[in-house]
Amino acid sequence: MPEKRYDIVGIGSAIVDVLSKTDEAFLADKGMVKGTMALIDSERAQLLYTSMGRTLNISGGSVANSMVGIASLGGTPAFIGKVGNDTLGQAFSHEIKAAGVDYYPGKANSTTLPTAVSFILVTPDAQRTMNTYLGACTELGPSDIDENVIRSSDVLYIEGYQWDTPQAKEAIRKACVTAKQAGNKVALSLSDPFVVDRHREDLLQLIYDHVDLLFGNEEEVFQLYKTTDFDTAVRKLRQTNTLACMTLGARGAIVVDTMATATVPAMPVDKVIDTTGAGDLFAAGFLYGYTSGRDLVRCAKIGSMCAGEIISHMGARPETPLRELLLKHGL
Amino acid sequence: MPEKRYDIVGIGSAIVDVLSKTDEAFLADKGMVKGTMALIDSERAQLLYTSMGRTLNISGGSVANSMVGIASLGGTPAFIGKVGNDTLGQAFSHEIKAAGVDYYPGKANSTTLPTAVSFILVTPDAQRTMNTYLGACTELGPSDIDENVIRSSDVLYIEGYQWDTPQAKEAIRKACVTAKQAGNKVALSLSDPFVVDRHREDLLQLIYDHVDLLFGNEEEVFQLYKTTDFDTAVRKLRQTNTLACMTLGARGAIVVDTMATATVPAMPVDKVIDTTGAGDLFAAGFLYGYTSGRDLVRCAKIGSMCAGEIISHMGARPETPLRELLLKHGL
Repeated sequence: MPEKRYDIVGIGSAIVDVLSKTDEAFLADKGMVKGTMALIDSERAQLLYTSMGRTLNISGGSVANSMVGIASLGGTPAFIGKVGNDTLGQAFSHEIKAAGVDYYPGKANSTTLPTAVSFILVTPDAQRTMNTYLGACTELGPSDIDENVIRSSDVLYIEGYQWDTPQAKEAIRKACVTAKQAGNKVALSLSDPFVVDRHREDLLQLIYDHVDLLFGNEEEVFQLYKTTDFDTAVRKLRQTNTLACMTLGARGAIVVDTMATATVPAMPVDKVIDTTGAGDLFAAGFLYGYTSGRDLVRCAKIGSMCAGEIISHMGARPETPLRELLLKHGL
Repeated sequence: MPEKRYDIVGIGSAIVDVLSKTDEAFLADKGMVKGTMALIDSERAQLLYTSMGRTLNISGGSVANSMVGIASLGGTPAFIGKVGNDTLGQAFSHEIKAAGVDYYPGKANSTTLPTAVSFILVTPDAQRTMNTYLGACTELGPSDIDENVIRSSDVLYIEGYQWDTPQAKEAIRKACVTAKQAGNKVALSLSDPFVVDRHREDLLQLIYDHVDLLFGNEEEVFQLYKTTDFDTAVRKLRQTNTLACMTLGARGAIVVDTMATATVPAMPVDKVIDTTGAGDLFAAGFLYGYTSGRDLVRCAKIGSMCAGEIISHMGARPETPLRELLLKHGL
């Protein structure tokens, strides 16, 4: 058992984001669905890169972004995820450690594939469309999960994206069982509407078996319950017996537990530049509030605040220390 | 002879900048001289990287930055420089091409070393201190210089930095002779005061033999003529029979030719964030003005405008299209 206790440990894809501004025509030409994540192979990755304009390379990965957010708020997060044995992998490791997250890259020298990259196209409406080559992330397996780290963390945070990789699913299941046996909580991000569509039954089963806190945007929750009706979605969330947060973009977020519903507005932002990481940082803020014992409305307000910071610049890692904003807003 | 004619071709180091904000104590602790460039080996590079905080990776390289600036102004630049066969090299190639520069990487598959990186520490006074691992750049040699490209360019732009690599020096000499035989101009950036100190005699000879336009900041020019007196420096510059620009930081720049001296103020900037690339972009603006036939004062004003853009954000590649600024300022 490590000496250290963590507020939270996240397991997720370790990805370097390659961001580029583009227009609607580019997305249409390449057959992309705006606002979603598509998995691509290395050939398509090469092709896309060549056709993209100037880029900005910033470390990303949904769960990793959330852990960086929690560190920036003053929490103590850990992250488990695999990078390749290359310069992008070195960059990812450097950034997450420099941001104050304890990084566990899994068992040593076990990757054979390159570090994952996500080509993120940002349209003038600030929406992001992602094309991810998973590379070394597909090699995450049960043996990469250090059970001592899982046991030492109040919350285990996982992402729906991992369901696209069979070995990773096993790793996540192992981590969930370990966390629950240690009396810890499990939090899940639904990640993407297409992910939910591909793995609906599995995710519903996971929620039923293990999940205490659930994060998703409207589209993802609608997909999960095969509905397009807001009230139906909320009723279904209530029945799951988890604490659920549904983010609603510019309309803010709603928190649903078995008893009540609370809504918080979105944080006003001068200019929305890039929505990449909005959901990741909402979750970071909420989970930081939760692990530090704040009430649910305050947790959601911190989530909104963090999402507001991240959408006001390119990339999904905070540029302003979130702890400063927390104090400034008296949260 | 290629069909295309270039305003300018630059030969220089192809470097990816790894920028990080730091404090004076960090520089002191690591024995660095603020505002200068030190060459480091791969071991020292690894060590430095580990001790640095969060970083931003942006393509750089002094001459490459200038060529990107000229493309952003609407000129037609080409760049010759070598990258390694790795992801950083792919990133460098992608960025310079996406910026509108015709990139000539030298003879195919000829590098064995990794792509060059420069660790750039930015202190709260916005000064930058560089630690460069040259890697693949040290493999630039005469056979990488396509003489047709040199002949097809109105100006050949070279940097003092290349004098630290014996093979590169030969490559530059070959390029200078080719340019002169074709009736083209040669422009030189002095690069760094320590570079000038290390290679004073060579650089003076080069200026005498080939150089038509000379760029340097005050410290570099003082080093070149072993003086600390402004008027002596200006008199010496006048005697070289070149057109010389001496940049003076916040005090602007001075243009010296055989007949007269003109001074232009620095472009006012809201907040100076990072001076990386200030000299590179001054040269870009001046050279763009020069190759488009503008008068010398206007050339220097464009230089100041470009330097002003680059110091108002992190990194040495423009974030605002310089063509827009050019029109806005009526230059």
